[in-house]
Amino acid sequence: MTVIEEVRHTLAVAALHGEGRVTEGAESVRRSYPLSQVYRLLEPGPVVMVTTSRKGRANVMTMSWHTMMEFEPPLVGCVISNRNYTFNMLRATKECAINIPTVELADKVVGCGNASGRTVDKFEAFRLTPARASRIQAPLIAECYANLECKVIDNAMVTRYNFFVLQVVKAWIDRTRKHPRTIHHLGMGHFMVAGRTIRLPSRMK
Amino acid sequence: MTVIEEVRHTLAVAALHGEGRVTEGAESVRRSYPLSQVYRLLEPGPVVMVTTSRKGRANVMTMSWHTMMEFEPPLVGCVISNRNYTFNMLRATKECAINIPTVELADKVVGCGNASGRTVDKFEAFRLTPARASRIQAPLIAECYANLECKVIDNAMVTRYNFFVLQVVKAWIDRTRKHPRTIHHLGMGHFMVAGRTIRLPSRMK
Repeated sequence: MTVIEEVRHTLAVAALHGEGRVTEGAESVRRSYPLSQVYRLLEPGPVVMVTTSRKGRANVMTMSWHTMMEFEPPLVGCVISNRNYTFNMLRATKECAINIPTVELADKVVGCGNASGRTVDKFEAFRLTPARASRIQAPLIAECYANLECKVIDNAMVTRYNFFVLQVVKAWIDRTRKHPRTIHHLGMGHFMVAGRTIRLPSRMK
Repeated sequence: MTVIEEVRHTLAVAALHGEGRVTEGAESVRRSYPLSQVYRLLEPGPVVMVTTSRKGRANVMTMSWHTMMEFEPPLVGCVISNRNYTFNMLRATKECAINIPTVELADKVVGCGNASGRTVDKFEAFRLTPARASRIQAPLIAECYANLECKVIDNAMVTRYNFFVLQVVKAWIDRTRKHPRTIHHLGMGHFMVAGRTIRLPSRMK
């Protein structure tokens, strides 16, 4: 599979309202991205949006506390507070997607950070389009320029630090986005927008 | 103590050469920085320089695989490969400093990333100025705009993932730097330079 199929996703909130609301994905421009290169997406430290789903209910969480832990297979460590709705969904399903937004989505990123999935269907509230993943049940966010399908492989530090170790099992990127302006959390409402790129004679991978 | 004293640091390499070379710190402009605010320095994901020292020998390592794990006391998780000279120094001393450089230091950052402390005294080779820390033996890098003195508090994931949990016990910042342009590693010689800052109605800490 090289292109994500669009998915017709009946939102839980719409169902609650007795509406047959269906959200369709935008024409997908995502292409498979090599797992060996995933570190290049996360290592600069962007704010990401973590998606989970359980019992037909999907959620989105804004997150900045993550780090690469291994190149290949790509391992990602992240802290997801046990106060977040996502925490129990991730513990139960052991699956999530890490979606990387750009500055155009900043309002939605902040909106998702301010709301809780306990009371809000964030896909609907922030008009995000769920797209079907290939290896996990959780939806991808179609508007994000990159999507990483992840499985929890190590829970050992969850009790003490809320720290999950994830393995990225499939990665997608929108290759039409040549200069994705990621956003980086500075705290208290401030975000740094990714600036220019420089090239240096680094021998680091 | 509110200002780091300058330190006269006789470099190991100079000693090897039979010279009495002494490096003096620049006039210090560092001020104490609240531990509760440390996440605001690391959460955006900058490349950092980790300093360690053991038996009179100091080292510098370039690192990007780090994440905040707790606000206060500030905990930082980081991966330091067991192929790095720093790995054993950190395991033995359980102390390091995380120094945050800006783009003006990019050449030194890359130089430190390309070299190994086994064969090179990086403070000398890259003309970095060691400054005395208050709570640890490892030197701070005077040229960096922020410095975090850290102690290893958890080794449980070192064997499996080379993952150390550090507690920041003292933080310093150069408050004269109003717009520090941190650099963020994109891999293969590419770095993103921190761009503009935007403000959004986020309720996230």
